[in-house]
Amino acid sequence: MEPETLQPTQRRLANAIRALAMDAVEAANSGHPGMPMGMADAATALFTRHLKYDPADPHWPDRDRFVLSAGHGSMLIYALLHLTGYARPTLDDIRNFRQLGSPCAGHPENFELAGVETTTGPLGQGLATAVGMAIAERHLNAIYGDDLVDHRTFVIAGDGCLMEGINHEAVGLAGHLKLGRLIVLWDDNKITIDGSTDLSRNEDVMARHAACGWQTLEVDGLEAGKVGQALDKAIADERPTLIRCKTVIGYGAPNKQGTAATHGAALGKDEVAAARQGLGLDPNEFTIPADVMDAWRSAGQRGSAERAEWHRRLDASKRKADFLAQLEGKADDKWLKPHLDTLFAGAKPVATRKASEMALEAINAAVPWTIGGSADLTGSNNTKTKGQDALTADNYAGRYIYYGIREFGMAAAMNGMALHGGVIPYGGTFLVFADYCRPAIRLSALQTARVIYVMTHDSIGLGEDGPTHQPVEHLQSLRAMPGLEVFRPADAVETAEAWAAALANDGPSVLALSRQNLRPVRTKAAKENLTAKGAYRLISAAAARKVILIATGSEVEIALDVAERLEGQGIGADVVSMPCTERFDAQDAAYREDILPDVSNRDILRVSIEAGATFGWERYTGLHGLRIGLDRFGASAPAPDLYEHFGLTSEAITPKILERLGK
Amino acid sequence: MEPETLQPTQRRLANAIRALAMDAVEAANSGHPGMPMGMADAATALFTRHLKYDPADPHWPDRDRFVLSAGHGSMLIYALLHLTGYARPTLDDIRNFRQLGSPCAGHPENFELAGVETTTGPLGQGLATAVGMAIAERHLNAIYGDDLVDHRTFVIAGDGCLMEGINHEAVGLAGHLKLGRLIVLWDDNKITIDGSTDLSRNEDVMARHAACGWQTLEVDGLEAGKVGQALDKAIADERPTLIRCKTVIGYGAPNKQGTAATHGAALGKDEVAAARQGLGLDPNEFTIPADVMDAWRSAGQRGSAERAEWHRRLDASKRKADFLAQLEGKADDKWLKPHLDTLFAGAKPVATRKASEMALEAINAAVPWTIGGSADLTGSNNTKTKGQDALTADNYAGRYIYYGIREFGMAAAMNGMALHGGVIPYGGTFLVFADYCRPAIRLSALQTARVIYVMTHDSIGLGEDGPTHQPVEHLQSLRAMPGLEVFRPADAVETAEAWAAALANDGPSVLALSRQNLRPVRTKAAKENLTAKGAYRLISAAAARKVILIATGSEVEIALDVAERLEGQGIGADVVSMPCTERFDAQDAAYREDILPDVSNRDILRVSIEAGATFGWERYTGLHGLRIGLDRFGASAPAPDLYEHFGLTSEAITPKILERLGK
Repeated sequence: MEPETLQPTQRRLANAIRALAMDAVEAANSGHPGMPMGMADAATALFTRHLKYDPADPHWPDRDRFVLSAGHGSMLIYALLHLTGYARPTLDDIRNFRQLGSPCAGHPENFELAGVETTTGPLGQGLATAVGMAIAERHLNAIYGDDLVDHRTFVIAGDGCLMEGINHEAVGLAGHLKLGRLIVLWDDNKITIDGSTDLSRNEDVMARHAACGWQTLEVDGLEAGKVGQALDKAIADERPTLIRCKTVIGYGAPNKQGTAATHGAALGKDEVAAARQGLGLDPNEFTIPADVMDAWRSAGQRGSAERAEWHRRLDASKRKADFLAQLEGKADDKWLKPHLDTLFAGAKPVATRKASEMALEAINAAVPWTIGGSADLTGSNNTKTKGQDALTADNYAGRYIYYGIREFGMAAAMNGMALHGGVIPYGGTFLVFADYCRPAIRLSALQTARVIYVMTHDSIGLGEDGPTHQPVEHLQSLRAMPGLEVFRPADAVETAEAWAAALANDGPSVLALSRQNLRPVRTKAAKENLTAKGAYRLISAAAARKVILIATGSEVEIALDVAERLEGQGIGADVVSMPCTERFDAQDAAYREDILPDVSNRDILRVSIEAGATFGWERYTGLHGLRIGLDRFGASAPAPDLYEHFGLTSEAITPKILERLGK
Repeated sequence: MEPETLQPTQRRLANAIRALAMDAVEAANSGHPGMPMGMADAATALFTRHLKYDPADPHWPDRDRFVLSAGHGSMLIYALLHLTGYARPTLDDIRNFRQLGSPCAGHPENFELAGVETTTGPLGQGLATAVGMAIAERHLNAIYGDDLVDHRTFVIAGDGCLMEGINHEAVGLAGHLKLGRLIVLWDDNKITIDGSTDLSRNEDVMARHAACGWQTLEVDGLEAGKVGQALDKAIADERPTLIRCKTVIGYGAPNKQGTAATHGAALGKDEVAAARQGLGLDPNEFTIPADVMDAWRSAGQRGSAERAEWHRRLDASKRKADFLAQLEGKADDKWLKPHLDTLFAGAKPVATRKASEMALEAINAAVPWTIGGSADLTGSNNTKTKGQDALTADNYAGRYIYYGIREFGMAAAMNGMALHGGVIPYGGTFLVFADYCRPAIRLSALQTARVIYVMTHDSIGLGEDGPTHQPVEHLQSLRAMPGLEVFRPADAVETAEAWAAALANDGPSVLALSRQNLRPVRTKAAKENLTAKGAYRLISAAAARKVILIATGSEVEIALDVAERLEGQGIGADVVSMPCTERFDAQDAAYREDILPDVSNRDILRVSIEAGATFGWERYTGLHGLRIGLDRFGASAPAPDLYEHFGLTSEAITPKILERLGK
């Protein structure tokens, strides 16, 4: 290393971050200067000395992952990426911070910029996502060894991240799995939006982390050298580490630093000018001194030789093809083909949660890339297959995670695994508890992360556990989310098809699965993956078609019974199975028109049957159709009693249709 | 107190709980015997010696609150209520455990049984709700003094409750507010559904609570006497207390105790018989020895004298009328009348979040019953009014809570406050973070708890913060939830009307409010509360009506502009403002038909305009209508740029309508 005297001090490098943060927020008149200014020194320490990365190849598989969990401080990472020499953001991108078309969005978005590993902003989730990245790293390391996989995950988190409930789940999971490769820098500036952290917290944060088996360190976060020493200690320790960086929010803004005023608004022209002077910055905005820029670029090139070495090791490795295939993670129809053939040859009544386990047996045997798990409902979600060892601190090669009662933490960790690459995560809970992990499901969708949510007990069909455990509005509320596909298969075939479709998806999928046994229905139709089309005609009317019954999941067998009753009265009825409304919506008009002919044809009554909220089913029935469902909370009773009580039987539904038909 | 020798031992009392739990689960062949059997002794200690209650008046305002946070162990509370002499559940109710019509639902439901203070089952929420009850108690105590308000909140929580993220928020909030009246009995049985807690947790739970300022105690949970001593210590201490009760799940089942097998399934006939023998129980099911029943009933009468004393104090109190009115909490239109009169006299453009603050100024001045707060977005949610002091450990009389970055904890605490009675809680966050507290919103709805969620920044109109902060699917996903009313007002008048409607609601309401200024629109219509009708005709077509524009919130002013453009071309257009779809759906057919005439009339095109998911709007436009919205995630840019980019302007919408009309 060059002697310190020959290069700009770390502080001058850090001040370049401060300058860009102030200037970009000022130009946008919107944004959060306080955090980047407070954490500039700590980030400088990390990016100039410890973090392993190469701006020339942001996707280098063995790079360290850096997660800005306090995503509102997005200018910190934009400044870092620019200064260290990533192709983007350019200085123009930064000048256009928070403007339409700039990759420098309000919060860091991984789909906008290489070098942003995950989209952050919803507090607490960045850190919890990082836990998943750290899991994926240890897992792949266990398989491929240090030569190919040997990196760390660094996080900058603020008080918001640490106060959110998900933090408890993430810290607990990381501590339990002894993820020593996870290092969190806590921006301890004692300020939240509402003011001092004393307004809302009396917690000894360090003691809480120690209680979960973390190493805890404390440093002056404004001294890059001290932060660097702490990073050395963190790297040397086998435990996950929390480094408390004592900082001053908005450091350098002479009149506003240390106050909530610097958190989420431009500092103002005069304050910026004063800060510029006090920090010894160039008086012109968006201007970085040449020697500082050189030093940053030089720091950005640190990893280049290491990357070249890594590629040599990869080329020399006998596992190269496996490793690259696992990273690519491309789904293959053949994984499930034998299983599907068996089902078509003769399926038996089975709960779709059990059918999912059967599909998983085939998948997990065919491909070693999956990592399953459940939020403490393994036997209910049917997520664990034969011989699937637990992934534990003693066996990172395992492929099943006991997440504990941590739905949200599980979901965020799965996002992290999917974003890290090299594993296909799936995890289970009850569908009603989709609510517990909904913020992470949204980030799966926004980031197009291939996470497969196995959500069982998908209606009042779960029975006695009652309304707290019975989803009603969940299917529709998940279908309303952009970028998410919700599959509700009707039997074992559709379940296997849904798995195939979910594996082939770029983004996330929810599999909504029954607790109760369902009789095979899909054998009546063709062998191609009809579930992947979203909806298909399961049976065609025998008599002249007067009714189209549209049903999902456990209600398809009811629809078949209704059709039989109608046909018995000479009324022709199609039955359409619609396991995935989003996919059906994406079919071409001709296909949709074939399955659901023009609704204005009043001669045909469309009827939806789903044991959940009818809200939204107008899309398929039209206003003059009939929507059979449940627009209230459920009740505690055996499932058959509930179906009868709420009128979800062919006996109850058929007369309603007849009445509507004027019969 | 009688000498111990003259009454059955505590263990015999506890075994009556065990017997009922085993028998009820066996009869239903469904349920969770393990927890009641493990915690029977601890619960006996609490209900026979410490808990202040009177089965003759379950709603006695100064009773202690008991929350079974580990709600799956519902037979514990059903047994306790029956044994101590509550009118319900009867033994027949218990025999019908988990059957349709029995109040003994799978999980305890406060709307089924007096004595059940809150509906539990979704893990972690019971405890977090109890925090709100403890806050309400201290607040009312600060106002009315020990004579009228002097009770405690006791919780039984399992490992699931303590692992859930919300636990971190609840424990942090309770510690910060020094809620010494909150006492949590932790059923430390080392078992979760998946097996040993070692599978998923290495945490020192006690240390984590101590880190938040809790007292922590540890006892043998199978010795009622020891638990009683710990309860004495807890009651004597000023801090909230966690009592670690070391127990054995399913205690008494000779072959299954201590294993996950006792958690969630009937023990089986033979195991029950063996347990009965080992515990010295009557060999017949549902049979309690007379002396044990007498002892329980006697314990249940302990509070009767105290309640009589309390009533005497209440009758003697000068504050009696105030106290009773506050407990009743009946909303009054006059709270907002002067404010509304001012608005009708001349409103200015204002963001509806600001309009909400204006309404709150009137409400908080008119009535001292409200307790506001925000999850660290006070200045953004506009939830704090002039002179509203903070509710803190030093000033429980305050009426504003800095909840910290704890959306879920806030929501659950608000449920607790509403269920406790005597306060009307409202709290703020961004609408996008409704996802973070969604499980608690669901419990607000299920329990018809009057909680008012102030959710601002309700669309891409928030601008630069980008897609992580821009709600898209949230309005529809909340509208899909039974029992919840979502108000999205268009201006200051509608905002005040929405507040009036929300206050008058039995159940919860969400106010979805804009960040950006909106021009006054409502002055064009009548003075009665039209928002309470859910939708109303804001303007009638001038030319022959060809179009009905239906809009909510910030899009109403756009609809007005569109109407003007259409009328300019001789096309008549109504504008319907629809601030609350659920309320509109509840109007009679004549009203609905007047506002939205039969959709089959193809001469009239219905168009919905809402800056969010169009999914579900078919209910109001019909399939042949037009739905203007946003069916993808947003972007980071100034709000006007986004509205233009996504085609949410009158310039972009009008041509689409003209095209559809064939013009």
